[in-house]
Amino acid sequence: MKEPTIKDIKRAAARINPYVHRTPVFTSLAVNRLADAEVFLKCENLQKTGAFKARGAVNAVFSIDEESAEKGVSTHSSGNHAAALAYAARCRGIKAFVVMPENAAPVKKAAVAEYGAEITLCRPTLKDREETLQAVARDSGSVIIHPYNDLRVIAGQATAALELLEEVPSLDAVIAPVGGGGLLGGTLLAVSALKGSTAVYGAEPAGADDAYRSLKAGHLIPVRDPDTVADGLRTSLGDLTFPIIQKYVDEILTVDDAVIIRTMKLLWERMKLVVEPSAVLPSAVLLNRRKAIRGNRIGLIISGGNVDLNRLPWQQGTNWRE
Amino acid sequence: MKEPTIKDIKRAAARINPYVHRTPVFTSLAVNRLADAEVFLKCENLQKTGAFKARGAVNAVFSIDEESAEKGVSTHSSGNHAAALAYAARCRGIKAFVVMPENAAPVKKAAVAEYGAEITLCRPTLKDREETLQAVARDSGSVIIHPYNDLRVIAGQATAALELLEEVPSLDAVIAPVGGGGLLGGTLLAVSALKGSTAVYGAEPAGADDAYRSLKAGHLIPVRDPDTVADGLRTSLGDLTFPIIQKYVDEILTVDDAVIIRTMKLLWERMKLVVEPSAVLPSAVLLNRRKAIRGNRIGLIISGGNVDLNRLPWQQGTNWRE
Repeated sequence: MKEPTIKDIKRAAARINPYVHRTPVFTSLAVNRLADAEVFLKCENLQKTGAFKARGAVNAVFSIDEESAEKGVSTHSSGNHAAALAYAARCRGIKAFVVMPENAAPVKKAAVAEYGAEITLCRPTLKDREETLQAVARDSGSVIIHPYNDLRVIAGQATAALELLEEVPSLDAVIAPVGGGGLLGGTLLAVSALKGSTAVYGAEPAGADDAYRSLKAGHLIPVRDPDTVADGLRTSLGDLTFPIIQKYVDEILTVDDAVIIRTMKLLWERMKLVVEPSAVLPSAVLLNRRKAIRGNRIGLIISGGNVDLNRLPWQQGTNWRE
Repeated sequence: MKEPTIKDIKRAAARINPYVHRTPVFTSLAVNRLADAEVFLKCENLQKTGAFKARGAVNAVFSIDEESAEKGVSTHSSGNHAAALAYAARCRGIKAFVVMPENAAPVKKAAVAEYGAEITLCRPTLKDREETLQAVARDSGSVIIHPYNDLRVIAGQATAALELLEEVPSLDAVIAPVGGGGLLGGTLLAVSALKGSTAVYGAEPAGADDAYRSLKAGHLIPVRDPDTVADGLRTSLGDLTFPIIQKYVDEILTVDDAVIIRTMKLLWERMKLVVEPSAVLPSAVLLNRRKAIRGNRIGLIISGGNVDLNRLPWQQGTNWRE
């Protein structure tokens, strides 16, 4: 595998520039006080499609040659990557085919449909998702764009950290959530190339801690029966993202759901930002495992803001387990 | 009455500058499409204390002479002005005494207490609030700062529109919510002084439409038994705000609660911003009474983001009536 270089990442930034937002970096004295640090939140919840996933999907879709692109692109995803790929395909004027598990959040299904993608529902197992996608891709002749185990996607996701470092050059540490590892992998590549002295941490739900365990074991251990409110982080690392993380990450910090939910509510209340559970992970580890994190100026990648407003996890009676 | 001039407003802007945020102006293609207009949202939900009220309170508190300030400031308010006055007093290092109705939202009481104000609870009638405030002010010797019927407060609130016009000079119209009229009054003064050709509309809940009816009648008609989810807009115009509104406003547009709640959810979903019901009014009238509004480039004052996250108005079983 040839991991994306800083040149690839900068090329991705130029490629996606017309189609994605340069998201703002917010600060909050209340968060600083609680974290006992200077905290910079890169707000990818304000990104196109409501998540950083637009970066990777647009980069991948616009990297495909004209002839291959003609028959469209396809993927399987329970949410943000699906919407992002649908959006990216619409930007390029090609078709998108999306395989989604039946139990995906209605708000996420609606977003994908609104961007004009063709949705195929399947049972919510990884096996069923992959088999259905193979069939859909075969029938349509479309190019499969994996949500994270794809170098073009990783290079695209890296552009969020690139922008953060441009705006706040002197960070002691950056924390990104880790699910499949596309965002954390990209963040690691960008930060290690531009600021070798800046630490990078992955923040992972205790109920889906395959990155933590894989790193400890020295080999990929897929997550089994993930149990976490952070629906975007239930996936396992891929064989492209794992080596990048293994090579560059300072540490994977885990946090349990009660802390994620409490921190989520705190960000909504204090920063007036709608952030989804997966996006809360960096703040949750920072506010609750401060000692493990090096330095005083901390950048957090707030990965997305797509939540079902009828089903907020701090509400009594809400069962977020799918 | 001598209404604040543009010079007063600019002096207020300089005075409050160290203590308030210059809030961002956001745009959203989804909102533009739904409004069939170019929409610019001045995000005072991201203001200190979570609402524009910080502007007026800080301006008033820092306008008081040293000797009078010594014994502190006081007010009655069910929420945002209370927190704003407490914050402003803390900025100046003086005491704040706040009379709040017993049924004020717990999240708002907590915010006021957190800024260090001394809270006195009273029954939730205007009469009781005013009598309790008189007693508190007499006992403490503090200076009463009215939430809106105060020229220093009006000049402070005007600075939000001042910033909006600086950032987006060519607006056809500006829409602000109207409760007591401090924000709308200030907006009218700033816009009419700087951009006579820009229309200014007030957006008011149908369930508390005293501004609409007062304007029509040509004299103040206080609201009786206000019934609206927009808790910040249940108050009546004052004798200082009414003449300003009467003189400058293009029109008061009203909208009912079902539309307010629907629009609130839409802003949370599409813009990932936590906005409170009162702050939704301008968007609600724009998205639903488009024809009445002149021009294509519309500025909206998003007044605040303080909501009780356990009690969102679109949730089944939530009773927001207090």
